[in-house]
Amino acid sequence: MEARLVSAQQAHHSWLCVGLDPLLEQLPAAVQREERPLVAFCRAIVEATADLVCAYKPNLAFWLAHGAEGLAALQDVLEAIPQDVPVILDGKFSDVGHTAAAYARFAFDRLGADAVTANPYLGLDGLRPFLERQDRGAFLLARTSNPSAPDLQDRAVGERLLYEQVAWLAALWHSETPGTCGLVVGATYPQEMATLRALAPTLPFLIPGIGAQGGDLASAVVHGPSALRVSGR
Amino acid sequence: MEARLVSAQQAHHSWLCVGLDPLLEQLPAAVQREERPLVAFCRAIVEATADLVCAYKPNLAFWLAHGAEGLAALQDVLEAIPQDVPVILDGKFSDVGHTAAAYARFAFDRLGADAVTANPYLGLDGLRPFLERQDRGAFLLARTSNPSAPDLQDRAVGERLLYEQVAWLAALWHSETPGTCGLVVGATYPQEMATLRALAPTLPFLIPGIGAQGGDLASAVVHGPSALRVSGR
Repeated sequence: MEARLVSAQQAHHSWLCVGLDPLLEQLPAAVQREERPLVAFCRAIVEATADLVCAYKPNLAFWLAHGAEGLAALQDVLEAIPQDVPVILDGKFSDVGHTAAAYARFAFDRLGADAVTANPYLGLDGLRPFLERQDRGAFLLARTSNPSAPDLQDRAVGERLLYEQVAWLAALWHSETPGTCGLVVGATYPQEMATLRALAPTLPFLIPGIGAQGGDLASAVVHGPSALRVSGR
Repeated sequence: MEARLVSAQQAHHSWLCVGLDPLLEQLPAAVQREERPLVAFCRAIVEATADLVCAYKPNLAFWLAHGAEGLAALQDVLEAIPQDVPVILDGKFSDVGHTAAAYARFAFDRLGADAVTANPYLGLDGLRPFLERQDRGAFLLARTSNPSAPDLQDRAVGERLLYEQVAWLAALWHSETPGTCGLVVGATYPQEMATLRALAPTLPFLIPGIGAQGGDLASAVVHGPSALRVSGR
C-alpha cells in the first residue's frame, strides 16, 4: 500500500487525499436530477482532481445509506479512478479474525481498494487480514478527529495514553512488516499529532478533519510527513 | 430495542440469538447450486428457527464480501424474518457523529434493523446516532470473543480495565436513557463476563462466541440475564 501511495505522491506532487462521502440532499439541484446522482457527482470530482491528489477515500457509510444501489454506485465511481491513484476504503472495520478476513475480501478483492481504515479495539488478530497482504494495508485509528475522541483514547494505560499505545503497536508491526500499516490522526488535534509523529516517525499518517471539521492544515503539513518522506529515502 | 427483545424472549421462551454469517464455500453443494445460495440458505435457517430464537444477528462482512449483490441478498433474507423477532445488524460501526448517522440510516431505515453492534473507541458522539432513537439501539463492544481481545481491552485505565470503562459508560447511558444500549461480551471469557455483569447489572448482554469459537454456554446462562430479567420486572 505504502509504495503505491508514495508513487502517487511523487507523480502528482501532492499529499492530498480527497474524501468521497456524498450526501444526496446536499448535492447541487442539477446533479440531484441525474439518473444516478452519487455516481455523476463523484465521477466529476475524480475527473477534476485525479492529477492533484495522492489518494481517494470513500467513506462506506455514505454509500451503504443507499443500500445495494449505493454500493453499486460506489463500485462505478471506483472504476473511474485512474490506476495510479490508490483508494483507501474508510470503513473503520473491526471484527474477529475470520470476519475481518471477509471485510478484506470485500475491500481489496471486490472493490479493489488498496487500503482500509481499521479500528484497533479488538487487537491484532482482527487487523492481520488487512496488514498481511504486501500490496494492501490498513490505517489504524489512533487519535480520531471527533469531539468525543478523548472519552477512551486519552485514557492513560500504563506509561502511555491509549492512542499512543495504538501507535506503539502499529510502529512495532511496521518495523517487522513495513509498507502495510499507517495511522489515522485527526487534524483537529495538532498537539496529539506531534506526539504521534515522535512515537512513530516512519508510519504514513492519514489526517482527516481538514475542511468542515476545522482541522489544522499547517500542523498536518509539519507533522504529517514521515521521516522516510522528509529524508527523501 | 430492549422492549422488542424482551417481548421476543418471553414469546419464544428463548435467549438464543442466531447468527446469519454465510460462507458460500461452506454451504451444502445442493444449496450452492441454487440461483441465490445465500438467500436460500439463510431463509431456510429463518424458517426452521423463527419460533425458537429471540433475535437474528447478520454479520455485515459476510454479505458485503459479495458486493452489491450480497447486500441485496441480505435485504431479501431480512424480509423473511417475522415482524416479532428483532434483528441486530453486526457491523461493529465506529465513526464520527455525522458518519455514524449515515450508518444508522443504513441499518435502521434502509435494512430495518432494530439494533447494531458498535465499537466504542471513538467515544460517545459516534454512538449517539444509534442510541438516541427510542425504538432502536446498539450493543457496544466491551470484551470481545477473539484471542487478541486483551491487547487493548485489558489495559488498566485508572481504577478500571478499558473494557470495564466501556461498561461503566454504557451503564451511565442506560441509567439516563434505558432501553437502547447493551454490551457485547464474548462467551470465550467467562470471568470477564461475571465482572461485567456486576458492573452493569441491568444492561442487556449480546454474548457471541458459543459454537465454533468454543465459548462457555453455562456462564452465558448464569451471567447473561440482566437483573431486570431475573427479577421479572
